[in-house]
This record gives sequence, structure tokens and C-alpha cells, in this order.
Amino acid sequence: MTGARELVATLTRRGETVAAAESLTAGLLCATLAEVPGASAVLRGGLVVYATELKTVLAGVDQRLLAEHGAVHPEVAAQLAAGARDRCGATWGLGLTGVAGPDPQDGAAPGTVYAGLCGPGTAVVRELALPGDRPSIRAAAVRAAFALLGEHLH
Amino acid sequence: MTGARELVATLTRRGETVAAAESLTAGLLCATLAEVPGASAVLRGGLVVYATELKTVLAGVDQRLLAEHGAVHPEVAAQLAAGARDRCGATWGLGLTGVAGPDPQDGAAPGTVYAGLCGPGTAVVRELALPGDRPSIRAAAVRAAFALLGEHLH
Repeated sequence: MTGARELVATLTRRGETVAAAESLTAGLLCATLAEVPGASAVLRGGLVVYATELKTVLAGVDQRLLAEHGAVHPEVAAQLAAGARDRCGATWGLGLTGVAGPDPQDGAAPGTVYAGLCGPGTAVVRELALPGDRPSIRAAAVRAAFALLGEHLH
Repeated sequence: MTGARELVATLTRRGETVAAAESLTAGLLCATLAEVPGASAVLRGGLVVYATELKTVLAGVDQRLLAEHGAVHPEVAAQLAAGARDRCGATWGLGLTGVAGPDPQDGAAPGTVYAGLCGPGTAVVRELALPGDRPSIRAAAVRAAFALLGEHLH
């Protein structure tokens, strides 16, 4: 598992940057990276797309996709990652969408989360079923996104 | 002092929404609001503008202002608040810029933070000198922004 500190060190060594578009985590991923002194060398910034409409306005997610499938969908995570990378001008873009709970959303149970990663020659989405309550799910989603990026830096 | 839970309750009662553009806190303000169940009724989203260039690209901060005065400036906080409000379509926009440390930035000491608020008939900036280390300063900046908004909701 790759933590924020290791990720900042690895990206710094590689001369690469990262950005994120976050729905259920609402900025927690970027804020966790920024806890690390020296994060400014690798963290470009991000988009907090909590309202569904902002997924389109800020990150460029296809409006029809959202209307047809809702926000909790693997392709939404993929488009969030691509949008973050593009709009923030980063080497790597991460996207997180899913259900933090306590209530289900778009027919998906709490803990259903999709993490997207977009980078040079890379576009992947990972489906997660995270246990626990709202704070646990949001924290685990951030850790899963870090892990996904970490795996592509080796 | 207005906490996240009270802010979500008050904004929900008023039928109003909030968005933020965050530099040193890098998403922590939005993420803290989203910890509260029901936050989706009031939190539109936000802009994490960690890299200086993104303050202009994402939030519309005047490039000349940044070139002349750096990012740690009251007018930058005001423009971040206005940019967050405008681009996220919220009733209220909050902007945070400053120095989390451990090193000084743009000639300002760690703990120098400007919090901006933009809303109906409202445009204010508060200068803060926050004590402590990097995590303390970032957390205190979020609390100060919540307090600033809270004062304008009474």
C-alpha cells in the first residue's frame, strides 16, 4: 500500500505531477497529499465535484452518461481522472466517485466506489467495495486511489 | 466558532449552498464539510488550486496580481472566493491562501493566511496569523473560514 508520503517522494523522484477530481471524498485525497511537506513539487491541484452537475462543468464528464447511469459508475471515474489530468495539467489524474453513505445512491450500496487513473498510456478503473461507516469509506477510497497510482509508478 | 455540522444545518435551513477555492488547505475545507451526512444539500464543490498557475486557470485569479504580489495576498483570497462561487454556482464562495510551512513563502511567515468570503452583497477578507505546525495551521485555516461564513449567516 502506497501512502501519501511515499507517493510524494516517488513522484518527486520521477519529476511527475498529480491532480484529482473527487466526488465522495470531496477534496480529501488532495488534502492528504498536501499534508506532506514538499507536496507542492508534485500536487498540481484538483476538482471537488460533489454536486452531479459539477462533474460536467468542472471535469467535463459526459452529461448523458450521468443522466443514464448516475454518478456511481466506472466510466464516470475514468472521465473524472481524465478531466483532472487535463484541466490541472498533471502527469497523472485520479478520479473518485461512489457512495460514502449512510444511504444508498443511484441504486448502489454504501462502500461502492470506483477509482480511476489516467496517465501516459494509462487509463484504468478499479471497482471497490469498501466496508465501514462514512468516514472509513472516504478514507479507504483515498488509500485505494493512492495504491492504484503507486502500482503504476513501479 | 461555527463547526462543519452547524454550518451544514444552517445553510440547509436557509436553502443556500457553498463552494471553496483552496490553496494551502488543498481540499480540506470541502472534505471537512462532506464529513457531515446530508452535506450534499449545501456543498456544491470546489477548486484545489495548489499550483499558482491553477489559481488563474481554475478560479480566474488575475495573473498580474499573482506575478506582482505572489499567492499570499488578501486580494488573491477575495478572487478565489469569487471564483469558487461563480464557477461552482454557489450562494457563498470561500477562498483560502497562505503559508502552511514549514518554510516561508512569498516573503510571508508560516501561519500567514487570508480567508475570503463572497456572497450576496458580501465580499470580505480576513487576515489570520495562525500558530503551530503545518497540520495545525491548515486545520485552523479551515475553522477560520467556517467562522467567517458563520458570522454572515446570522
